[in-house]
Amino acid sequence: MGYTVTAEDLDAIALGGAFLGTGGGGDPYIGKLMARNALAEHGPVQVIDADEVADDALCVPVFMMGAPTVMVEKLPSGEEILKALAELERFLGQKAQALICVEAGGLNSTIPYAVAAITGLPLIDGDGMGRAFPELQMVSFTMHDIAATPLALADDKGNSTLFSTIDNAWTERLARAVTVQMGGAALVAAYPMSGAQMKTSILRGTMSLIREIGQTILASRAKSEHPGPALRKNLNGTHLFTGRVVDVERATTGGFARGTVKVRGVDDFQGQEMIVRFQNEFLIAETAGGEVLCSTPDLICALDADMGMPVTTEQLRYGLMIELTGVPSDPQWRTPAGIALAGPGYFGYDHEFRPLGG
Amino acid sequence: MGYTVTAEDLDAIALGGAFLGTGGGGDPYIGKLMARNALAEHGPVQVIDADEVADDALCVPVFMMGAPTVMVEKLPSGEEILKALAELERFLGQKAQALICVEAGGLNSTIPYAVAAITGLPLIDGDGMGRAFPELQMVSFTMHDIAATPLALADDKGNSTLFSTIDNAWTERLARAVTVQMGGAALVAAYPMSGAQMKTSILRGTMSLIREIGQTILASRAKSEHPGPALRKNLNGTHLFTGRVVDVERATTGGFARGTVKVRGVDDFQGQEMIVRFQNEFLIAETAGGEVLCSTPDLICALDADMGMPVTTEQLRYGLMIELTGVPSDPQWRTPAGIALAGPGYFGYDHEFRPLGG
Repeated sequence: MGYTVTAEDLDAIALGGAFLGTGGGGDPYIGKLMARNALAEHGPVQVIDADEVADDALCVPVFMMGAPTVMVEKLPSGEEILKALAELERFLGQKAQALICVEAGGLNSTIPYAVAAITGLPLIDGDGMGRAFPELQMVSFTMHDIAATPLALADDKGNSTLFSTIDNAWTERLARAVTVQMGGAALVAAYPMSGAQMKTSILRGTMSLIREIGQTILASRAKSEHPGPALRKNLNGTHLFTGRVVDVERATTGGFARGTVKVRGVDDFQGQEMIVRFQNEFLIAETAGGEVLCSTPDLICALDADMGMPVTTEQLRYGLMIELTGVPSDPQWRTPAGIALAGPGYFGYDHEFRPLGG
Repeated sequence: MGYTVTAEDLDAIALGGAFLGTGGGGDPYIGKLMARNALAEHGPVQVIDADEVADDALCVPVFMMGAPTVMVEKLPSGEEILKALAELERFLGQKAQALICVEAGGLNSTIPYAVAAITGLPLIDGDGMGRAFPELQMVSFTMHDIAATPLALADDKGNSTLFSTIDNAWTERLARAVTVQMGGAALVAAYPMSGAQMKTSILRGTMSLIREIGQTILASRAKSEHPGPALRKNLNGTHLFTGRVVDVERATTGGFARGTVKVRGVDDFQGQEMIVRFQNEFLIAETAGGEVLCSTPDLICALDADMGMPVTTEQLRYGLMIELTGVPSDPQWRTPAGIALAGPGYFGYDHEFRPLGG
């Protein structure tokens, strides 16, 4: 069932997105600011169920592409994403009738609310990942043979680019190269699809789930409780680790924020060490001995162990106490097609994917 | 006055283009093959005077972008450039009525003949450089405030990209990044302009000049004479050097073929050494002592000292005997705007531009 989202809901939405964003997807504060400005000026947003959309309606995902470390310094104005959407609509000769969120994350699950408020379009309750992933082709839409192109991309300076490619991996490659030239981040409208295509491919209910997770975090904090246990109960999650960050290595290369974080255990994890590897998002959590405890496509979600707030990779710093929760990914990601698209092998790791809790 | 170009003219056109191409613009043999196939199948091409074009006619330059060293290995099929043109026309909602050659060069002054033959469109007698230059924005059109975008770019695999940018330097930057990802070379339709814009900005007569230079080379060779003296007489050229290549350093970096060639003098130049620096095209000719004898935007044209054929940078090899001729560039290039766009300072050299023969 559909519902209305107002500016008051954005705290929860930004937090929930950041949690499912598995360390990536950008700063939830920036995403919230963008959406709040848009909702304050243009009014609330309608979130609708996938089945409420007509089969022939044009549905368009809108999102940020690039290294979130860059977006922290370059607040998007909103103009870029409207420009990208307009370029896509111009190319298609058709107006979008509903918006799609491409992934959960601090920025990418709030940007669609901003665009929905400004354009008056409804936002569909679902997304393409059920989490965040670093590359453009890593969406359920790819598994359903929906092309990423035509893809329109715009920067903060007024440049834009429209891509038509032979497959979604080529789109990632070409659009990434342009994004890097544009300063490391750009706003995108892509994967235009019919309502019928959307219904078969979208991961349903993600927008609602994001809001619920955020509400759980806020409710726990209001009771001065840590939200970790409640979230693990609701999400069938596993407590992977709690500890203090003792080392962070990071580099922005090839348009991505890549690195590793080393965490030294406390409490039940005293005496142990955990290494988490990331490329925008947390990908692999392994022990100092190399045993993989949780691996992409399953989710590695980080919370500040003291404050209970989601932690993104760019917030990682020496001394920060974090709690890591593993969450099973959507069943689509655990199929051979899903593992080929976003499993450990794609990212260059040689371990087999072992489903969390499996 | 307009004239008809048939397949028989292509030998001269490929040679003349390669001479004015100042070492760049790709292999004249490949360019000739492409054009010959097209003319054999589709018939001759009309070359028309700029003034024969209606002021409101859509005129479109078509060309190859990238490192010519790559193009030697990747013969374009012709499909790519037609796709780029079609994407541009689709975006503009208007069909091209005349084609423009963007630069003189082995490939870029023959590709327009291929496209003209296939599409049946006339080719305007003129170009944007009167020579070849390595970067997209280095055209007389930029000096007349004509935007490079919308620019459509297509590769041999079926990918294409359409750019809209805030200035021509941004177009170069973004399109170059995509070209590199596409394997180092791509086919382009860009700088769409009205007939009125074309008339004020095009360097007139270049297509005729290219053919005349080629005819001079062929006529000299038929008489077993070296064409150097006749070309210098016709083009107000300066004999810069004759010598044997003793060293070539080259690298394909950032989508360009960059390097230096060292030449040891013979005959009148015995005992001297010349260093020529290039980025796709020859840019600077200087003595071993660092005295600049000829510098971009003026032309440094290389001929095989024995055979009289134009030499491109990728043909440079140890032991080859070459003759270097300096040719004054079009007066537009010698203005402050022209020097800012393609003078030594732009390429990172700190000498002032001194016009050849000045």
